[in-house]
Amino acid sequence: MASEGARRLKHWGWGYEDQQPSQQQVEAAAKAIREHLGFGAGEVERPLPLEEVQLRRARLEAPASLSAICRNDPYERASHALGKSYRDVVRGFRGEFSHPPDVVAYPREEAEVESVLEWCAEAGAVAIAFGGGTSVVGGIEPVLVDERPVVTIDLRCLDQVLDIDEHSLAARIAAGATGPGLEEQLRPRGLTLRHFPQSFEYSTLGGWVATRAGGHFATGPTHIDDLVESVRAITPRGAWESRRLPGSGAGPSPDRMLIGSEGILGVITEAWVRVRRRPGHRAAATVAFASFDGGAEAVRGLTQSGLEPSNCRLLDPGEAALTGAASDGSALLVLGFESADHALGPWLDRALEICAEHGGAPTGEPVVRRPGATADAARGGAEGAWRGAFLQAPYLRDTMVAAGILSETFETAITWDRFGPFVAGVRRAAERAVTEACGGGRVTCRITHAYPDGAAPYFTVLAPARRGAELEQWAEVKAAATEAIVSAGGTVTHHHAVGRDHRPGYDRQRPDPFAAALRAAKAELDPAGMLNPGVLIDP
Amino acid sequence: MASEGARRLKHWGWGYEDQQPSQQQVEAAAKAIREHLGFGAGEVERPLPLEEVQLRRARLEAPASLSAICRNDPYERASHALGKSYRDVVRGFRGEFSHPPDVVAYPREEAEVESVLEWCAEAGAVAIAFGGGTSVVGGIEPVLVDERPVVTIDLRCLDQVLDIDEHSLAARIAAGATGPGLEEQLRPRGLTLRHFPQSFEYSTLGGWVATRAGGHFATGPTHIDDLVESVRAITPRGAWESRRLPGSGAGPSPDRMLIGSEGILGVITEAWVRVRRRPGHRAAATVAFASFDGGAEAVRGLTQSGLEPSNCRLLDPGEAALTGAASDGSALLVLGFESADHALGPWLDRALEICAEHGGAPTGEPVVRRPGATADAARGGAEGAWRGAFLQAPYLRDTMVAAGILSETFETAITWDRFGPFVAGVRRAAERAVTEACGGGRVTCRITHAYPDGAAPYFTVLAPARRGAELEQWAEVKAAATEAIVSAGGTVTHHHAVGRDHRPGYDRQRPDPFAAALRAAKAELDPAGMLNPGVLIDP
Repeated sequence: MASEGARRLKHWGWGYEDQQPSQQQVEAAAKAIREHLGFGAGEVERPLPLEEVQLRRARLEAPASLSAICRNDPYERASHALGKSYRDVVRGFRGEFSHPPDVVAYPREEAEVESVLEWCAEAGAVAIAFGGGTSVVGGIEPVLVDERPVVTIDLRCLDQVLDIDEHSLAARIAAGATGPGLEEQLRPRGLTLRHFPQSFEYSTLGGWVATRAGGHFATGPTHIDDLVESVRAITPRGAWESRRLPGSGAGPSPDRMLIGSEGILGVITEAWVRVRRRPGHRAAATVAFASFDGGAEAVRGLTQSGLEPSNCRLLDPGEAALTGAASDGSALLVLGFESADHALGPWLDRALEICAEHGGAPTGEPVVRRPGATADAARGGAEGAWRGAFLQAPYLRDTMVAAGILSETFETAITWDRFGPFVAGVRRAAERAVTEACGGGRVTCRITHAYPDGAAPYFTVLAPARRGAELEQWAEVKAAATEAIVSAGGTVTHHHAVGRDHRPGYDRQRPDPFAAALRAAKAELDPAGMLNPGVLIDP
Repeated sequence: MASEGARRLKHWGWGYEDQQPSQQQVEAAAKAIREHLGFGAGEVERPLPLEEVQLRRARLEAPASLSAICRNDPYERASHALGKSYRDVVRGFRGEFSHPPDVVAYPREEAEVESVLEWCAEAGAVAIAFGGGTSVVGGIEPVLVDERPVVTIDLRCLDQVLDIDEHSLAARIAAGATGPGLEEQLRPRGLTLRHFPQSFEYSTLGGWVATRAGGHFATGPTHIDDLVESVRAITPRGAWESRRLPGSGAGPSPDRMLIGSEGILGVITEAWVRVRRRPGHRAAATVAFASFDGGAEAVRGLTQSGLEPSNCRLLDPGEAALTGAASDGSALLVLGFESADHALGPWLDRALEICAEHGGAPTGEPVVRRPGATADAARGGAEGAWRGAFLQAPYLRDTMVAAGILSETFETAITWDRFGPFVAGVRRAAERAVTEACGGGRVTCRITHAYPDGAAPYFTVLAPARRGAELEQWAEVKAAATEAIVSAGGTVTHHHAVGRDHRPGYDRQRPDPFAAALRAAKAELDPAGMLNPGVLIDP
């Protein structure tokens, strides 16, 4: 449980309270960002202090048997009321917590998860499983169509790596373990999960499994789906635990029904996941292309070659310029291989040949390192810079809100045959919406994950926000992007999940009989509809 | 539809009628097998001719609107009454077709699948989707707990590759296309699915998807699951079609609910699958190990290296001797790499180093070929021999039945930490059962598929059968093997599916809440319970 005196996460934005820069620092950063972008509001806003936040009165109190693990003070309720999308941060910043949970429970062991669920059932309450709270799709926001009280179950106390099987390269990890937390426990054994979503610092294993998070690898096993060996969850009908199996052909995969279930079927408490030895061999290069489409063709060639680079991220010229990586109008490919087993020279050599076949030229000498090089050097310049900027982006979002800059990202996936026109169409739709809603702004794109049969383009929108109208602006841009993606055959999300925000697109995308089957499965396991209602399917 | 004059499949065993050897040939083969094995009945039995087979009277007639695509003659009913396990072949051989379907329908287009299902619903009939009929687990045998008439829907007329997307390396293929049929249609474009289960010659794409078939690749994407981009099925609640997506994070995967559903949720009519360019580069070697366990440690090292050999099959000394590959008590690893993109020298070199680290020695010169070599030579000696013997095994099974030899295979998967004792335990249990049921026999083992976290051991049982008691002998061995596998934590099947035969083990293995969810999903999509009842879950 969040004990007194421990570091507290900001109740309204990204990171810990002690990481929040001073107002002076925020103002300096805002000035720099505005100059770089050419827009942003004049005044730098301050977040509403927690003391001034008015919360709806709590409608439920924990019973004595659970009072030791339950909290209902304003900090706890506010900091569990929203996710971390731009829309969430704007509301948190202004103190608009319209749907706070009534109680936040911190189970310390799985039996307490069961007890909390039993109490919720008796009390007619809704139960929302909560990992790092980093959802950017309204996945943990207690918005209901009815008046039931809400208990948010924060799993952060279940944070242990419970078992390590070095022989099979697998680890049993409790659902509340964060990225750094679990990596720290794996490191002494020379192991790593290597799942680094952008939310890595705060998000949790259980959250990744529940939302089909996308991670480190740009090709091959990118989704957490591929790393899961078995899952355990508590449902209102009892514990759901699959066997540890490297592969199985016994009926539809039970794990694949829980993976992506976003808390509507049960509370995931732990999983066996596939880990690997820490890679010592690295080979990396940055390759410039005259155009994004040319670079995308190289990415297609790379994914279809069977070489499986671990990094293969393509920035469009706008994104490359924005991040300071290239200012000459090039698209940039950040390419990397890693292995704990073998030197990667032949892999990188062939990959650079494929890039050259598509007009790509390395921007400097490739970096090839063997085990023993220091970690920073071994990571390679461009790749290391990319990763640093990647993890800093959510912190920057908080400053953008203060600076009056609308900052939003959306992502999808599409097969290669439709890739070019699809990206162009989504970009046009987003640019049009940004112009209409904000009077201008920038839309950039990168490929974050790529497969032999397609890729996942990831779009970033930066635009001038109008104070007080941010949520309407956001909704307009979001609706236009979703419409463009879903009507052109893409997926409403490649790795951000569905939550509540993506429902309009998701409802069109999924097969109707599947929706009926999922609804029936949920009704069977959760007849009271108490588990995270409104996410994925109607309550 | 099976038109008059076309080649007919044997109604009781493997392959076409014109492939069945003469009685003289069968007797010669039986003699050789008996000498090799040291057991087998004295007399070589002949299959009961179809003319002498007595079938239960058909309880249903097709309506006029469907009569053009429906058959109910004895050949059609008998040849759709059983799968192709040893138990099935023994019964078919003797003319014991206790549960023939009443009608066999051959839809020529998807709309006719819908019409047949509508008719089944009106007539209160059961509908069993049928691909190649190669199930070895009772997956398509119409055994019911009630007296409903049965319509088997044979999808062989839906055999076209409907669309090829060379850019994304994907193809839309109708469910009834067989392995050779679809490969023949892909070949002119230089493409291949490279999914070669042992049933490859007769089994179908739809059957592979419905049963989670395991294929060509010994490591990496071995199950058809990994090759599926989207699936289309007809359910009693309408068409279920997922989007073509290279990856998605939008809720639980709809495809993964259909993959492995064994005909209980709908009739799969087509799928988009990931294909690849035909590999021209090959590198292969055969490596001998002093023991199976030593070889298994090398396989573990290979799968954990990230090299992803396409072939990595380890034969135990008994299997190596039985197939004539080695007679000196060695375990043999058949190792191969293939690529359409790059030469594989560095891959094979490192793989052989890993083998050497575990005491493995190549049995000859490695074979490394570049594009342009003739197909046979390029495949490599050991690998080619392995594949030929692999595809011949089911034909041999028919001769074994005639020769009075019980021949059965079973397979599973387990994580590496339990691998050695698990294989030893299952082997002991099978040997004990074979001794008790048959008075002796042989149990051999090979690794067919391997993963970083475990492997799939595949067992072959050959034992003297007692005429007339074969089914009891089979049941005793099967029960013992299943008990040993399931109680030790393995999966009841790695790629043979569940069907009806594996239910006792499957019911223990799957999580109870998942079974409840699957049952609810089926009841929602198939309220009459007409789709393949008894497979996977109770009717």
